[in-house]
Amino acid sequence: MTRLPQFIENVQGKLWLTEDEDHNLEIRYHIKEVLFEEQSKYQHVMVLDSYTFGPMLVLDGIVQTTSRDGFIYNEMISHVPLAYHPNPRNVLIIGGGDLGAAREAAKHEKVERVDLIEIDETVVRASQLHMPEVSGGTEISPKIRIHYRDGVEYVKNLKAEYDVIIVDSSDPIGPAVELFSEAFYQNVHRALKDDGIMTCQSESPIFYQDIMAKSYNRIAGIFPHTKMYTAVVPTYPGGFWTFTLGAKQALPDPEQVRFDIDARYANEEVIRGCFSLPTFIKKQLEK
Amino acid sequence: MTRLPQFIENVQGKLWLTEDEDHNLEIRYHIKEVLFEEQSKYQHVMVLDSYTFGPMLVLDGIVQTTSRDGFIYNEMISHVPLAYHPNPRNVLIIGGGDLGAAREAAKHEKVERVDLIEIDETVVRASQLHMPEVSGGTEISPKIRIHYRDGVEYVKNLKAEYDVIIVDSSDPIGPAVELFSEAFYQNVHRALKDDGIMTCQSESPIFYQDIMAKSYNRIAGIFPHTKMYTAVVPTYPGGFWTFTLGAKQALPDPEQVRFDIDARYANEEVIRGCFSLPTFIKKQLEK
Repeated sequence: MTRLPQFIENVQGKLWLTEDEDHNLEIRYHIKEVLFEEQSKYQHVMVLDSYTFGPMLVLDGIVQTTSRDGFIYNEMISHVPLAYHPNPRNVLIIGGGDLGAAREAAKHEKVERVDLIEIDETVVRASQLHMPEVSGGTEISPKIRIHYRDGVEYVKNLKAEYDVIIVDSSDPIGPAVELFSEAFYQNVHRALKDDGIMTCQSESPIFYQDIMAKSYNRIAGIFPHTKMYTAVVPTYPGGFWTFTLGAKQALPDPEQVRFDIDARYANEEVIRGCFSLPTFIKKQLEK
Repeated sequence: MTRLPQFIENVQGKLWLTEDEDHNLEIRYHIKEVLFEEQSKYQHVMVLDSYTFGPMLVLDGIVQTTSRDGFIYNEMISHVPLAYHPNPRNVLIIGGGDLGAAREAAKHEKVERVDLIEIDETVVRASQLHMPEVSGGTEISPKIRIHYRDGVEYVKNLKAEYDVIIVDSSDPIGPAVELFSEAFYQNVHRALKDDGIMTCQSESPIFYQDIMAKSYNRIAGIFPHTKMYTAVVPTYPGGFWTFTLGAKQALPDPEQVRFDIDARYANEEVIRGCFSLPTFIKKQLEK
């Protein structure tokens, strides 16, 4: 190889990607092969085949999802709102260019249409070509329609269009920064039908407690029924990840919720129990 | 500093500890200061003050617990069996030299005595001196009695002595290897009273699925009522950790279990909900 992609280093013939959490904690992945590299209009996009996690989608040097554990995040961001909605026919996903959340949403029988609004077609192309375990490859459900547009702009002009909206953003830096703004969530609220439910990823309760609490409180200021839930995502720092769900109407009792989709992490017990928060997270939200 | 402790490297004036998971994934901690270093009869013992996690107990180069997140593991290995036992008066802890599990167990009003059997007094000394957030420091509950003995030998001659036994071991290499043997769990079973409950840590469901499934099945072969539960331990690889609980009598319905101990991770909801396993873990246990 004559040129090493950005973010990759060669140490005595071995390739490594280093994620630097706060200059004091580094996670280093041994890389087998660079499967994809392209500087898109929005960000630097790679798929790296790693020894430990298989192919990984890496944006601006940060691991977004891996073939080994991507199912956990994608199942939990999509199946929870869909299971708690009485009749989720029309679903909007903002971001989610790895197609994993769209693929999970399309599994629900009641779901008729999944609109995916991804700003960066490079992410979709890379995921379809090199992350089939996550994206499902190039053959996707006919329910899914991909629109290469800016999600922030897209939701500005919608009114009562969707049953469920999933905000599947990267971290609040780079192209995703506006997906954490209050104006955006007000538009999401308006874009939902009267019994609509939204979810977003709300970051790590260990490393980004501030962003987590702000995300939750922003949504709780707009939606009358707001709940945080967690999942374990091994490739995210600290392993622990939070999601925030906002609903326009009261949610059903978890014990009444049914879930029979064939999934690898989510099941009825998990979908019912995911809102049980450890005390230290509750305290962060109360601050 | 004239000599660097084993496992620590100095890179351009900064100290780092590198944990090597499988030669393909490295976690690197930036170290502020080496607070304690001693080669004991059993293992290499350090307490390293890290920038991200504060003081960390490190045995043979492997991070065991940290001041920032040690409470999660210690609360979950102790409060779950104690909450599900109707009358836990006498508690035995095998290992647990950081004293965190003993400290949590002693919080239960019904608990009268906590016998801690730790093979390596160096671990206890280091934890008391340099990890007070975990150990509670040098002033410990009068309920706790520390015995510097081999836990494997200790349980050989007991019969119906304890209500709850907690096996708080390090990984099944080095001094802890026998704490994963079948003979040991048969002795633990005999050491428990007729309504006794035991728990042990049963490793990562991501990186050590084989050890996890073997630990569970070994206990399920001896105890009539066996359940796995999980917690998120950010400083363990993958973040996700499993515990296995074995009971001689049927456990109460989780909804009947009360828990009002002041804790940072555990609460009544968490104690009731922790047995909900993701599908991929259930499948590993069925293999």
